Amino acid sequence: MTDISQALAEIKRGADEILPEEDLIEKLKEGKPLKIKAGFDPTAPDLHLGHTVLINKLKTFQDLGHEVIFLIGDFTGLIGDPTGKSATRKPLTKEDVLRNAETYKEQVFKILDPAKTTVAFNSTWFNEFGAADMIKLAARQTVARMLERDDFKKRYNGGQSIAIHEFLYPLVQGWDSVALEADVELGGTDQRFNLLMGRELQKEEGQRPQSVLMMPLLEGLDGVQKMSKSLNNYIGITDAPNDMFGKVMSISDDLMWRYFDLLSFRPIAELNELKAKVEAGANPRDLKIDLAKELIARFHSDEAAEQAHQDFIKRFQKNALPDDIPEVTVTAGEALPVTNLLKEAGLVASTSEANRMIKQGAVKLNGKEKVTDGKTLVELGSTEIYQVGKRKFAKITLA
Amino acid sequence: MTDISQALAEIKRGADEILPEEDLIEKLKEGKPLKIKAGFDPTAPDLHLGHTVLINKLKTFQDLGHEVIFLIGDFTGLIGDPTGKSATRKPLTKEDVLRNAETYKEQVFKILDPAKTTVAFNSTWFNEFGAADMIKLAARQTVARMLERDDFKKRYNGGQSIAIHEFLYPLVQGWDSVALEADVELGGTDQRFNLLMGRELQKEEGQRPQSVLMMPLLEGLDGVQKMSKSLNNYIGITDAPNDMFGKVMSISDDLMWRYFDLLSFRPIAELNELKAKVEAGANPRDLKIDLAKELIARFHSDEAAEQAHQDFIKRFQKNALPDDIPEVTVTAGEALPVTNLLKEAGLVASTSEANRMIKQGAVKLNGKEKVTDGKTLVELGSTEIYQVGKRKFAKITLA
Repeated sequence: MTDISQALAEIKRGADEILPEEDLIEKLKEGKPLKIKAGFDPTAPDLHLGHTVLINKLKTFQDLGHEVIFLIGDFTGLIGDPTGKSATRKPLTKEDVLRNAETYKEQVFKILDPAKTTVAFNSTWFNEFGAADMIKLAARQTVARMLERDDFKKRYNGGQSIAIHEFLYPLVQGWDSVALEADVELGGTDQRFNLLMGRELQKEEGQRPQSVLMMPLLEGLDGVQKMSKSLNNYIGITDAPNDMFGKVMSISDDLMWRYFDLLSFRPIAELNELKAKVEAGANPRDLKIDLAKELIARFHSDEAAEQAHQDFIKRFQKNALPDDIPEVTVTAGEALPVTNLLKEAGLVASTSEANRMIKQGAVKLNGKEKVTDGKTLVELGSTEIYQVGKRKFAKITLA
Repeated sequence: MTDISQALAEIKRGADEILPEEDLIEKLKEGKPLKIKAGFDPTAPDLHLGHTVLINKLKTFQDLGHEVIFLIGDFTGLIGDPTGKSATRKPLTKEDVLRNAETYKEQVFKILDPAKTTVAFNSTWFNEFGAADMIKLAARQTVARMLERDDFKKRYNGGQSIAIHEFLYPLVQGWDSVALEADVELGGTDQRFNLLMGRELQKEEGQRPQSVLMMPLLEGLDGVQKMSKSLNNYIGITDAPNDMFGKVMSISDDLMWRYFDLLSFRPIAELNELKAKVEAGANPRDLKIDLAKELIARFHSDEAAEQAHQDFIKRFQKNALPDDIPEVTVTAGEALPVTNLLKEAGLVASTSEANRMIKQGAVKLNGKEKVTDGKTLVELGSTEIYQVGKRKFAKITLA
């Protein structure tokens, strides 16, 4: 029983909702490996930490001995957007899907154990499906029920069009659970309707309906909006170690705890100890360093984590210059105002940006001296280290 | 031009609506054989004259030199009612469909020329359709548009459930027009939405959209309700000649003209002459006889039509007895009141019905003498012809 309550605590950690929880507890009590399903788009993956929240939960189940099924929803991807309205949803080819699957694996196997993960494609069963099967599947649900789904309801009431095939996609996702005989399906809170569809179809097919576990959307670096590329508040899992480090260090103390919950693999007990330490006066800054190193180690390596830490100390704590400053040669054949030099070297987008940064005192020479006048002429043949803002450095030679 | 306006007049005869009429005129002007589509359920056909209204219009096109495609919608029939709610829509087998198709042919080829009729099955193209094709087809229409269809709107607003696959069926019917490259589709007025769906899909597929011709529902013998088996106001096309004759003779004069329009193959000019004759004092009764004979000739034979006419004259006009009176022996071993004799012989359901008929003067002996007293004893060994009402006869021997 202690095992199960510990397991359940880790499973529930950060989760938004489990439907129904008693069901899941029953299944866990049986002590057999459960099939844990999560579905992913077949489009080219370029994951950020927001996406990993779900994958981390898969890892939790995997660590508890269950079978993780990483399902790539390629069947609908191979169709694309049949209305032709979305340019970004062109039909994928079989090759696209396989290539994207490889990229997925590269990325998610930094978290999941490949040996304990089944990668499945729903085209496997849907390519065998005929038009008649699809009609029978469509007969399983009513129009009224579909229009209860939040986004459909809003669009319908708002006079925005819903193409009929959009009603088929939740059924397709639900049928995947039938085909896989999933015991548990994980998804975002926005997937609630589709996740429950799997339960219904399984019940109708005489299977034990899957339990559903919904994970929240992760907040971005601003701590308010959800993490997304378009809001530029994300940490990409292929971000360079120093970028990851800097970004983690920039988050608020509150957000740090949220990230610990959803992104760290430290057990709950350890997190509780950390919280106690901070309450007793420890500096949250040190915990952010630990979190940053854990994440860099996961997506790069232990060495990269250590190096990023050292770089950070040099750069920000000791005000030193980083080790890996790129060397740039600007070929002008004559002396240049410092603003033009910075522009040609790519440290700023324009001379007016250079002037603005100089006025803000954000342009430094050789790690110390501030540049105060944009018109200062730099002599032909000079080589100096320029810094713009906190993170842009270049060793510029004017030739 | 005269040809086309005559052709158009016959095409429009009795039609409810043509969408769009100019379109159809254009097509007729081209002078090439057009593909005329009409779809039929694959369930066991047992047609009445109401069903033949559409088939008669197909014949009009056929007589004008066009190609009639009698389309059996077996694809959805093979699926049945996937919700399992309708016991009458069990999935048909391939054998059921073929057998029903034969029955259809037997019946409709009494109207259509088999040599000029293509019998098609939509399973031919839909069996090649995959689930992905069905999803793409579903993407062609919006939920809002489907909910504009009268019956869907009523059900949705009335809180009655609509299963999602019901939204697919109009698209299936529309796709049939694409597969057949139909130039014209005929259907009932209740099919308006589905018929227009064919136009839309054809347009999207780069085909010239079909013209749509809608025929009204035929009124039954009562002249008010639509002809239907359940209302028992129908003339079945397998009804016996004498029944057909009697039923046609029973309709009102107004309904007679409607039937001439929709059921007779006499050209418009001839109908106009008949109307002029009646206005000049001719008895509509004689026209009903002509109509009855035309219909019996169509579904039985010229001889059967003539015979039915003769029988009718004998029975009702000369008050004579019909030729085919069944002989019945009632074995009682003693004399019986006439009421009991009629009941035992099956001419009435009960002795009280016998008494009622006798009181109405509706029971006759040997074609002349009215029976006036129900208690009259009939002697053992007697053999007499009894008539109850207009059409029930029996030669009864009491043994």
